[in-house]
Amino acid sequence: MTTESPSAAAPLAVVVLAAGKGTRMKSDLHKVLHPVAGRPMVEHLLASVAELAPQRQVVVVGSGREQLEAQMAGRATIAVQEPQLGTGHAVQQAEDALAGFSGDVLILYGDVPFVTTGTMRAMLDRLHAADAPAVVVLGFEPADTLQYGRVLAHADGRIAKMVEHKDATEAERACRLCNSGLMAVKAEALFDLLGKVGNDNAQGEYYLVDIVNVANAEGGHCAVVVTGDADEVAGINSRGELAEAEARWQQRRRAQAMVDGASLVAPETVWFAWDTALGRDVTIEPNVVFGPGVTVADGATIRAFCHLEGASVGPNVEVGPYARLRPGALLEAKSKVGNFVEIKNARLGAGAKANHLSYVGDADVGAGANLGAGTITCNYDGYFKYRTVIGERAFIGSNSALIAPVRIGADAIVAAGSAVSRDVADGELRLVRAEQMVKPGWADRFHDAMKKKKAEKKAAKD
Amino acid sequence: MTTESPSAAAPLAVVVLAAGKGTRMKSDLHKVLHPVAGRPMVEHLLASVAELAPQRQVVVVGSGREQLEAQMAGRATIAVQEPQLGTGHAVQQAEDALAGFSGDVLILYGDVPFVTTGTMRAMLDRLHAADAPAVVVLGFEPADTLQYGRVLAHADGRIAKMVEHKDATEAERACRLCNSGLMAVKAEALFDLLGKVGNDNAQGEYYLVDIVNVANAEGGHCAVVVTGDADEVAGINSRGELAEAEARWQQRRRAQAMVDGASLVAPETVWFAWDTALGRDVTIEPNVVFGPGVTVADGATIRAFCHLEGASVGPNVEVGPYARLRPGALLEAKSKVGNFVEIKNARLGAGAKANHLSYVGDADVGAGANLGAGTITCNYDGYFKYRTVIGERAFIGSNSALIAPVRIGADAIVAAGSAVSRDVADGELRLVRAEQMVKPGWADRFHDAMKKKKAEKKAAKD
Amino acid sequence: MTTESPSAAAPLAVVVLAAGKGTRMKSDLHKVLHPVAGRPMVEHLLASVAELAPQRQVVVVGSGREQLEAQMAGRATIAVQEPQLGTGHAVQQAEDALAGFSGDVLILYGDVPFVTTGTMRAMLDRLHAADAPAVVVLGFEPADTLQYGRVLAHADGRIAKMVEHKDATEAERACRLCNSGLMAVKAEALFDLLGKVGNDNAQGEYYLVDIVNVANAEGGHCAVVVTGDADEVAGINSRGELAEAEARWQQRRRAQAMVDGASLVAPETVWFAWDTALGRDVTIEPNVVFGPGVTVADGATIRAFCHLEGASVGPNVEVGPYARLRPGALLEAKSKVGNFVEIKNARLGAGAKANHLSYVGDADVGAGANLGAGTITCNYDGYFKYRTVIGERAFIGSNSALIAPVRIGADAIVAAGSAVSRDVADGELRLVRAEQMVKPGWADRFHDAMKKKKAEKKAAKD
Repeated sequence: MTTESPSAAAPLAVVVLAAGKGTRMKSDLHKVLHPVAGRPMVEHLLASVAELAPQRQVVVVGSGREQLEAQMAGRATIAVQEPQLGTGHAVQQAEDALAGFSGDVLILYGDVPFVTTGTMRAMLDRLHAADAPAVVVLGFEPADTLQYGRVLAHADGRIAKMVEHKDATEAERACRLCNSGLMAVKAEALFDLLGKVGNDNAQGEYYLVDIVNVANAEGGHCAVVVTGDADEVAGINSRGELAEAEARWQQRRRAQAMVDGASLVAPETVWFAWDTALGRDVTIEPNVVFGPGVTVADGATIRAFCHLEGASVGPNVEVGPYARLRPGALLEAKSKVGNFVEIKNARLGAGAKANHLSYVGDADVGAGANLGAGTITCNYDGYFKYRTVIGERAFIGSNSALIAPVRIGADAIVAAGSAVSRDVADGELRLVRAEQMVKPGWADRFHDAMKKKKAEKKAAKD
Repeated sequence: MTTESPSAAAPLAVVVLAAGKGTRMKSDLHKVLHPVAGRPMVEHLLASVAELAPQRQVVVVGSGREQLEAQMAGRATIAVQEPQLGTGHAVQQAEDALAGFSGDVLILYGDVPFVTTGTMRAMLDRLHAADAPAVVVLGFEPADTLQYGRVLAHADGRIAKMVEHKDATEAERACRLCNSGLMAVKAEALFDLLGKVGNDNAQGEYYLVDIVNVANAEGGHCAVVVTGDADEVAGINSRGELAEAEARWQQRRRAQAMVDGASLVAPETVWFAWDTALGRDVTIEPNVVFGPGVTVADGATIRAFCHLEGASVGPNVEVGPYARLRPGALLEAKSKVGNFVEIKNARLGAGAKANHLSYVGDADVGAGANLGAGTITCNYDGYFKYRTVIGERAFIGSNSALIAPVRIGADAIVAAGSAVSRDVADGELRLVRAEQMVKPGWADRFHDAMKKKKAEKKAAKD
Repeated sequence: MTTESPSAAAPLAVVVLAAGKGTRMKSDLHKVLHPVAGRPMVEHLLASVAELAPQRQVVVVGSGREQLEAQMAGRATIAVQEPQLGTGHAVQQAEDALAGFSGDVLILYGDVPFVTTGTMRAMLDRLHAADAPAVVVLGFEPADTLQYGRVLAHADGRIAKMVEHKDATEAERACRLCNSGLMAVKAEALFDLLGKVGNDNAQGEYYLVDIVNVANAEGGHCAVVVTGDADEVAGINSRGELAEAEARWQQRRRAQAMVDGASLVAPETVWFAWDTALGRDVTIEPNVVFGPGVTVADGATIRAFCHLEGASVGPNVEVGPYARLRPGALLEAKSKVGNFVEIKNARLGAGAKANHLSYVGDADVGAGANLGAGTITCNYDGYFKYRTVIGERAFIGSNSALIAPVRIGADAIVAAGSAVSRDVADGELRLVRAEQMVKPGWADRFHDAMKKKKAEKKAAKD
C-alpha cells in the first residue's frame, strides 16, 4: 500500500467528453453549446473547473468539431473520437493531448455541466487519501434509479463492485447509490487501465466504467465519493432536460438574489444570466429578462416587462416598464428609462430621462436632460454609425429626430416634431417645422365623399 | 348472441350534449364556446371526431342556441332541449336529426372536449366486439372518486352494475372505476332504450346512464372501456377548470415542441395556439404568446415578449424582443423584426429589417430593405386602407411616415423625419424637411421665465 | 369565575409590533412597509383591523420610526421601543398610548399581515366567553413545527402549558399546536401581567408569551383559539418569505377572479393589486400586471403584456397587447388601446382608438376619434403640463405631434406627419408638412460612395 499523502496541489488535467451525438436535441448546434442562463453549458462546467487551475484541458468531440474549436478558441485541446466506440475509447483519444502530463485527471462530461468545484475537489482529495485508490468514482442517489449502474461500496467508500442495472440482482438493485460516470484517476494509471478494457459486450464498445473492474482485478481498489445533490450530475440530453436545467439554475439564482437583498415580486418570472450582478434594495417586478453582462446598482427598480443585456444600471435608477437596454447602455444615478424605450451603446447622465417610445443609440446624454416621447437618434445611414451628443439639461421635444452626427448644447431646446441635422448651441432653441396649412371645411367634405364611396362599394357588393 | 364482426367502417353519428346551463362560468358566452389554446372547446372535440369521419353530427343545446348555430355554420345539426329534463332526455332530442341513420352513435359532451380519437375508436371497436354489448361506457379512474358514479365490471369489461356514489355501498365505493358519461350505442338500440328510461328520482330527470340498466334488465349486456388518462374526460364547468384545461394543453404542447427540436428557455411561459407549427432549431425565449395561424420555420428565433397571430416566420428570422406580428405578417428568410414593432398584412423580403418602434401595415418590403426606427406606414384614412410598396435595399430614415398608397423604389433613400406622400423612384433621395430655424439664447430666456413662473406658483400656494 | 357575557361591542385597541430589526430583508425600507399586492404589508393588517373599528391603534417601532410615522400619518400612534428587550417589553411601550383605555387589546405583528378579521373576532369572542380567560392566544398547526413554541391545551381550549420547542419533552413536541404570538387581552390585565414578566433567560429579554404563565401562576387561566389556515399567521422575515406571501395572495385573488366570472388564460401570470376590481366576462390574456387603482368593466378584454395602474377600463373595451395605462387613464365603452401605447391622465371617449405606438397624456379624446400610429401629445415643456383636447370623430394622421395646449375640432383631420401647435377647427384639415425635395440618382451615388468608403476602411484594417 502506498503512503502518499493528500495533496491539493497535484497538477490537474481535465478531460471533458463531448462526443455523444446528441440526436435527441434535434439540433445543428453541438449539444454542449446549448445555453443555460445565456451561456453554453460546457462553459458552466469549465468555469467550475477553472477554480482548480488545471494545467491541461481536453475536450473530446465526435461531430461538430469546428463548433467546439471556435468556442474553445485555444482554451482547451480538441481531441476527435472517430469512430465512436464508447466512453473508454473516448477518453483514450485524450492520450496524445496528455502526453508527458503527470498528475490527476478528472473525467467530466460536457452535458453534465453543473458539477460543483467542491465536488470535483472532493474527488481529487479522495484520490490522494491514505488508501490511495486507483480510481475515484462520483456516486449519487437519484430519485429514480432505474436507468443507472449501481455502485456497491463499503462504508469507507471502497467499491466492492459496479454493476449495470440490467445485470444487477434484486439485492443489488435495492442499492440506491448510482454511478454518475465522473471519475478521477492518476494520469500514470489512466491509459494503462484503459488499455486493458475490452469490448466484449452487446454494443461492442469500450466502457470507461470498466477501468474499475480492471483495477480491482489487478489487486488495486477504487473508491466512491457521493454527492448529496443528484441535480448536480443531471445530464442534459434533450431540450426538455435543457429546460429543466435552466429552471433549476434560475430557481437557485432567484433565491440567492432575494437573500442578497433584492425584492422579486414574482421570482418565477425573472430570468437571470450567468453573470447578472444585483445591488441591495433592488426591486424587480414581474417578467424581467436579463441577458449577459448586466449590473444593477443599489436602490434601482426594474419594472415589469424589461429586457436587459450588457447594460449598467446605476443607483436609484428606474427602468421600465417595457424598457429594452442593449449592450453599452449606461444609466447613471437616478436616471429614468420608461416604456417602449430602447437604449443601445448610450450613456444617460444622472437624472436624465427618456420616458416614452424612444430609440437612443450611440449617444451621450447629459445629466438632467429630458428626451420627449418619440425621440429618435438617427445613428445609421445604412453603412456607418454616428454619435449624438446631448448637453446637460437639454430638452428634446416630443417626436424629434436627431440626425447623427449631431450635438445638442446644454440647456438647449429642440422643438417638438423637429428633425435636427445641424448642431444646436447651448441655450439655443431649434425649431424645424413647416408652416401650418389650414383648409377649413376640407375634412367635412372629405368625410362626405368617403362615406359616399364606402356606400357605393357596399352597394356594388350586395 | 349476434355474431356481427368488428368493423371500423360502420357508419358513425355523433351526439354532442351542450345543453348544460354553465352557470358557474358566469358568462354570456356559451360554455362550450369558451376557448382553450385559442379555439372554442367544442371545436377541439369535433376535430378529434372528424378523424372518424362521422356521417352525422348533432349538437344538443339548451340556451345559447344562436351562438352554437353561428359557430357550427351547418357543420352540425343543432337540436334544442327545452325544457331540460336530464341527459337521457337530451339525447332523445337528437332523434329527429338521426332519423333514418343506421350505424354507431357516439354520445359526447361539449364541455369534455379532450377525449382522444383513439379512445373514441376503442369505444366503437368494443361495441363491435364478438360479445356485442348493447352499450359501451367510457370509464376512468379519477384521483378523487367522490363525486362520480361507479362502474362495477368484470375483468372482460362486462358491466355488472352501475351505481351512483350516494347509492353505493362501502364495498362499491371502494371500486375506483367511474363513469365518464360518454357512451357508444348502436343507433337501432339507442332510442328504444331511452324510451324505457324513467324519471323516478329526486330530480325527476331522465338519466342517460339508465340505458345500461334497461339493457341489462332486458337480458342484454353492456361493456366498459377504460381510459388510462383521467384528464381526457375532465369536464370544464368553471373558469378555474377552463384555466386548468388550458394549462394541461399547454404543458403537453410545450413538451412536444421540445421533443421536436425547439428550445424553450422557460417553457412554462410560452403559450401556443392549437395550430402553431414550429420548425427545427427554433429558439423561443421567455414570455411568448402564439395566437392562431402561426408557422415558424427552421432556425428562427422568437425573443422574449413577442406576440404572434396569423404570421409566417421564415427560416433564420429573428423576431423581437417585443415584436407583435399580426395576421398576414410574412417574414422571409433572415429578415428581422425588432422591439416595439408591429407588422400587419405585410411582407418583409429576405434580410429586410424593421428593428425599432415601427408600424408596418399593408405593405410589401423588398429584400434587404432597412426601415429606420419610428417608421410608420400610414395605411388608413379613416375609411379605406392603402398599400405601401418598398423596393429592395431601400433605406427608410428614422421617424419617417410613408403615406399610402406610395411606392419607394429600389435602393432609394428616404431622409430621416420625412413624411412621404409621393412615389420615390429607384435610387432617388427623398427629403421632406422644413428649414431649421435657429433662435440663439431663446432657450436660456425660456428657462429663466419658466423658473420664475414656477417659483411664483409655488409662492402663491404657500 | 366571572359571568361576563360575550360582547362584540367592547371597545378595542390594537397594538401592532413592528420593532424587529428585519436584518434578513437587507433593506433601508422598514420591513413592515415592504409591499404585497402593491400595498405595504402593515396596511393589509390594518385594513383587516379596520373592520373591527378599533378605538386606538398603536404601532411599536424600533428603528425606522420616521418611515412608519410618515406612512401612518396620524392613523395610529407610534410608540418607540429603544432598546429592544423582547416582545413583552415591546408591548409595554404601548402603555402610554393606551392610558385611560378600557376594553380589549389585540396584539398583532406588522410582519404577520394576513390574519383575517374573522380570526381576530374569534379571539375577541373567546376573551368574552363565559369562562373569561385572562389571555387568549392564537394557535396554529404548521406543516413543520420545529421552530415554534407549543400550546398544550385541553379540549375546551384552556391552556395547560406553553413551552418553547427547545425546552419541550418528546411528548410535548409531538403536540402540533403552536403559538402564533398573537394575543387578545383585556386592557385592565395586560400591563399588570406584563409587569410581572421577568427576563431570567438566555437572551435577558422580556417575552410576551410569559404573561400566560404569569396569569396561570396567579390562579387565572388562558385559552387558545386555533386557526385552520397556517398561512394566515405566516411571518415575513425575508425577501423570500415576502415573495411567498405575494404568491399566496395572488393565487387566492386569481381563483376568486375566475369564480366571479373572469377568464384568465394563464392565471399564474396575472398579478393583481390589492384593490383591483373586475367585472363579469372580462378576459385577461397571459402576462398582465395590475398596479393599484384599476377597475375593469364587464366584457372588457385585457390582452397579453399589459400594465395598468390607476386606470378605469369601460365595458367592452379592448386593451393591448402591450398597452400601458397609467393613473387617470379613463377608457370609455368600446374604446381601444393597442400596442406600445401609453395613456396617462387622459380620457378616451366611447369607441375612440389609439392602436399603435402612441403617447396620450393629459388629454381628452372625443368619442369615435382615431389616433393614428405614432401619435404623440406633447404635454410637457420641461416645467408645466398642458392639455390636448380632441373632438369627436377627429382623425389624427400617423406620426403626428399635438403640441399642447391645443384643441382639435370635431370631425377634423390632422394630416400624417404633422406637428400641430395651433387649434384646428371642426371639420378642418390641418397639414404641417414641408415640400418634398426630390434628388434623382442621389441615393445611387451615395450608395457607391459609401461602399467605396467601407471597402477602404476594411482595406486599411487588413
